[in-house]
Amino acid sequence: MAVHHFHPHHYFNTIGSHTPVLHVADGDTIITTTVDAGGWDKDGVQSAVRGNPMTGPFYVDGAEAGDTLVVQLDSIVPNRNQGWSGRMVAPNCVDPDYVPELPWMPKGQRESAYWHVDALAKTATLAKPETKLGGLVLRIVPMLGCFGVAPAQGQAISTATSAEHGGNMDYRGFTSGVTVYFPVFVPGALLHFGDGHAIQGDGEIAGTGIEISMDVQVTVRVIKGQTIRWPRGENAEYIFTVGNARPLDQCVQHATSEMLRWLQSDYDLDPVGASILMGQAVEYDLGNIFDPAYTMVCKMSKRILASITP
Amino acid sequence: MAVHHFHPHHYFNTIGSHTPVLHVADGDTIITTTVDAGGWDKDGVQSAVRGNPMTGPFYVDGAEAGDTLVVQLDSIVPNRNQGWSGRMVAPNCVDPDYVPELPWMPKGQRESAYWHVDALAKTATLAKPETKLGGLVLRIVPMLGCFGVAPAQGQAISTATSAEHGGNMDYRGFTSGVTVYFPVFVPGALLHFGDGHAIQGDGEIAGTGIEISMDVQVTVRVIKGQTIRWPRGENAEYIFTVGNARPLDQCVQHATSEMLRWLQSDYDLDPVGASILMGQAVEYDLGNIFDPAYTMVCKMSKRILASITP
Amino acid sequence: MAVHHFHPHHYFNTIGSHTPVLHVADGDTIITTTVDAGGWDKDGVQSAVRGNPMTGPFYVDGAEAGDTLVVQLDSIVPNRNQGWSGRMVAPNCVDPDYVPELPWMPKGQRESAYWHVDALAKTATLAKPETKLGGLVLRIVPMLGCFGVAPAQGQAISTATSAEHGGNMDYRGFTSGVTVYFPVFVPGALLHFGDGHAIQGDGEIAGTGIEISMDVQVTVRVIKGQTIRWPRGENAEYIFTVGNARPLDQCVQHATSEMLRWLQSDYDLDPVGASILMGQAVEYDLGNIFDPAYTMVCKMSKRILASITP
Amino acid sequence: MAVHHFHPHHYFNTIGSHTPVLHVADGDTIITTTVDAGGWDKDGVQSAVRGNPMTGPFYVDGAEAGDTLVVQLDSIVPNRNQGWSGRMVAPNCVDPDYVPELPWMPKGQRESAYWHVDALAKTATLAKPETKLGGLVLRIVPMLGCFGVAPAQGQAISTATSAEHGGNMDYRGFTSGVTVYFPVFVPGALLHFGDGHAIQGDGEIAGTGIEISMDVQVTVRVIKGQTIRWPRGENAEYIFTVGNARPLDQCVQHATSEMLRWLQSDYDLDPVGASILMGQAVEYDLGNIFDPAYTMVCKMSKRILASITP
Repeated sequence: MAVHHFHPHHYFNTIGSHTPVLHVADGDTIITTTVDAGGWDKDGVQSAVRGNPMTGPFYVDGAEAGDTLVVQLDSIVPNRNQGWSGRMVAPNCVDPDYVPELPWMPKGQRESAYWHVDALAKTATLAKPETKLGGLVLRIVPMLGCFGVAPAQGQAISTATSAEHGGNMDYRGFTSGVTVYFPVFVPGALLHFGDGHAIQGDGEIAGTGIEISMDVQVTVRVIKGQTIRWPRGENAEYIFTVGNARPLDQCVQHATSEMLRWLQSDYDLDPVGASILMGQAVEYDLGNIFDPAYTMVCKMSKRILASITP
Repeated sequence: MAVHHFHPHHYFNTIGSHTPVLHVADGDTIITTTVDAGGWDKDGVQSAVRGNPMTGPFYVDGAEAGDTLVVQLDSIVPNRNQGWSGRMVAPNCVDPDYVPELPWMPKGQRESAYWHVDALAKTATLAKPETKLGGLVLRIVPMLGCFGVAPAQGQAISTATSAEHGGNMDYRGFTSGVTVYFPVFVPGALLHFGDGHAIQGDGEIAGTGIEISMDVQVTVRVIKGQTIRWPRGENAEYIFTVGNARPLDQCVQHATSEMLRWLQSDYDLDPVGASILMGQAVEYDLGNIFDPAYTMVCKMSKRILASITP
Repeated sequence: MAVHHFHPHHYFNTIGSHTPVLHVADGDTIITTTVDAGGWDKDGVQSAVRGNPMTGPFYVDGAEAGDTLVVQLDSIVPNRNQGWSGRMVAPNCVDPDYVPELPWMPKGQRESAYWHVDALAKTATLAKPETKLGGLVLRIVPMLGCFGVAPAQGQAISTATSAEHGGNMDYRGFTSGVTVYFPVFVPGALLHFGDGHAIQGDGEIAGTGIEISMDVQVTVRVIKGQTIRWPRGENAEYIFTVGNARPLDQCVQHATSEMLRWLQSDYDLDPVGASILMGQAVEYDLGNIFDPAYTMVCKMSKRILASITP
Repeated sequence: MAVHHFHPHHYFNTIGSHTPVLHVADGDTIITTTVDAGGWDKDGVQSAVRGNPMTGPFYVDGAEAGDTLVVQLDSIVPNRNQGWSGRMVAPNCVDPDYVPELPWMPKGQRESAYWHVDALAKTATLAKPETKLGGLVLRIVPMLGCFGVAPAQGQAISTATSAEHGGNMDYRGFTSGVTVYFPVFVPGALLHFGDGHAIQGDGEIAGTGIEISMDVQVTVRVIKGQTIRWPRGENAEYIFTVGNARPLDQCVQHATSEMLRWLQSDYDLDPVGASILMGQAVEYDLGNIFDPAYTMVCKMSKRILASITP
């Protein structure tokens, strides 16, 4: 159960079977940093190519295809005080005939919103542009937008999108204290992570969270021989499953099927019992409706699951 | 501000320009009952045709096309102690290749789950079928699955589905204490309601909530000359907008566009400000992913809105 | 087998259980006229409310719920020489970020394209606006955009949309010589039709065909006891099924399921045979991707079906 | 304009920046072979890993990011006489509640249909399983299911799916005589191809065409400085654009936007003219509705385009 301090020197814009930057053992902890979605690091230097550059990959000894990689998000803390975000709701998130009403910039111009982030006070304060929001203050809940393991068959999947291997899920539930489970497709699993957000609304409908570089600590573990199909997770209140696809309907189908499997394999429920329970107690979160693949999360309350006495 | 006690004698399976059962004034309160989705009333008698039979319609004096009808859900309380629900997650909510794994009944047979509902204790206890859930107890949060106003142009829309006029939205947020806003399309608005659920999971993925007859009290009000496009609502914590369509993506587009309009018309936000705010603070709920039209709800925190000081 | 000459005096903007304008017998022929989508008749007079006003409904004696109504489209001929069409591809038919590139009119202004239609020469010649198309000449193939039978349960469905009962399918395959089959939901079936197009591209992506009033002749027949789920049709080369829904994926699901049923019930195919055949020989047409419900058509070649010798 | 005879020794199951197997010049012709989707070659030997193994990649001298690669499909001819196909329509192509009616095999068993293919006579004759189809004979129209160029940013995209770079589009219009245009993302373009089908229905709804190994001849050309967004093509009658995504609606959006761009850049049409023309003359084909990304094709008649005289 070693603790590894890792300082990244290069980053990847795909999640794939890249040469590992570090080998770690089952149970080890990694303490490292991530640059923001645009490649800007804690000193405000662009040290990676824009588009969700990833720290890693980390090779976890013993992980093989068919296993499950457990990633405990121990700590995700902004390591600088300026973040940026989109200034316009994305056109695919509004009615097609409302698109011209959005606040488009003049052709060829770009603009972001900038926020002052105080990691200690846990606040983000809007600095510009000038709008009717004034110096709006939001409470931050730092999270990772993009992380996952190398996919099968030598694929290298853009960090713009997501699939069974994780990736750019942009789900604001991936915060400190959450445990995430990924299916393993290649030896060592090859964990990548990055794209930190100080906060993000459901759906990432302006195309970003408050994008910022992070200090990250994760602890990894391998569950041998447990094969899952989609990313899973748990926090203090819920177990959850993640479906990444388009349209949102298909995200729900993936996440719901995965939850039905989980309830039957690990919670001793029969198919009718699992259906009745989910029908009246399931909850869903909208991860993102911006990226090439959207994300929906299917959640079941641990308290309710614990109350079952057959 | 009269209080009307109304006892329904007939019900409608469409929402349309039916002859009103009662005329009420702006500000009046209606105290009445609804039968369950199958037409069964508080005495367990099937007194209406199955398929979300509606109590009403109620003609609200002064309401005209282009106005907004305000419906305050004062009280929704189960008025019998047996409810029923679906026993299988619906095939459109799981992966197509998982469909055969669902617990289908033998062809031609039907089965429901039955629950003992205690309105005072606020609990629902699973009575049958026998599953690994045993006598599962859930806390109830009574709600209306289907309600709305008569649509334009003489349409009579099945209570199986929903649209701009409301209808079978099956959103578990429509509970006691919530205020709902509907666009008015015809003189008197013609409010219909029914399809009470003692509780329902997000998405109504087993095709039902815990279906039960209700004692319902609502208070109605008219906002003259305020034209909205989609149902809106508010509770203690949130204002929200409702999009009804397929796929879920389009629900999100409807609800998000409506929220952008609302923030600019009533909360003094400019287009860029509204976008920046929603990008980092919006929340979405999944109403239903079972009915012909699905439902997504777009929510903004009243606390955050109140904190804005331009 | 009477021939009825019917002159319409009023029109409906919903398809529903309206009072029939005429009772006809099984096998009878109806010769009548339709106004265009905007309500303009053959003399250029607006004699109906805009939004696909329907001629009818016609009550077909003997038709009952559970039967099939056969509608033979004997003849559809423009009865005036001016037609109009949309001048902009609809925003829901292009990429969301391409929407601002479309040729929007200044706010509050509307413009249509106008065509000179020569029914004898079978041509439509673009008259205005002035564009790089000059006086483009297209060969016309007159069709009905919206037609169908009254839906179940007293519904009155807007002629803007479509469903199991037919409606605004906007499929350019509904031309003279085609036979269409509708499920019957109410006594007399209650056939409505209108919304003639001199020609229309696949998808009706500019929101219209070349809209024009028509002389229409149809012959109706009842197939007792044959229950179908979705509209079906046939022409000289194909049998076809029609799925109306959103997104297009669901249209394909409806139409494909209906074709699988048809091949097994009427073409003596087993499930595996029907699957193998459709896999390599099925064709699909895009009806519309503009209306509230979209339309896809599933086609099987009569020549190939006739070649099967088990 | 050299002619290269290339004999493949290894294959790739992703389309990406793999080491080229051959460098060719602008204008050169490549004569080679492809194995079938399962990796079986012309001698019935499995010489590649299943899942659309690709011949190539071919490096085309002079092609750079931002250019267009022209791929002329000179000849695609089955080089063995046995093909295979799916025996069940895929569950995502039928209504969710129809899925259990499909002819599923007993769990753990697989079965394909087998066809005798006669490349000279241009026929495929069903050999097994035994069904009501007997020895059905279909006329073959050989095509390539999967082909394209290396995507940007070092991505390696599974040959199960498709995107801007082409890939597993499974469009039965990609036959001998067709010219295809791909956006170039990397130096040399890196052309891959394979997954030949003797014939395929629209949509590839049984999950396959008649899968078979092929003799393939293509001629490649580079258009310097012409940047396109999506694959395009042309045959004797049509120019066409290809959209790959989910749901089908988004495929239509991609392909329609690309056609609007093409008509304006190369056919001297103004935005209004392009819209009016497409509204009444566009056609769409359904490529596939089976793969992770679906495919729709937007077509414009060359005859109509040639008739325009502004």
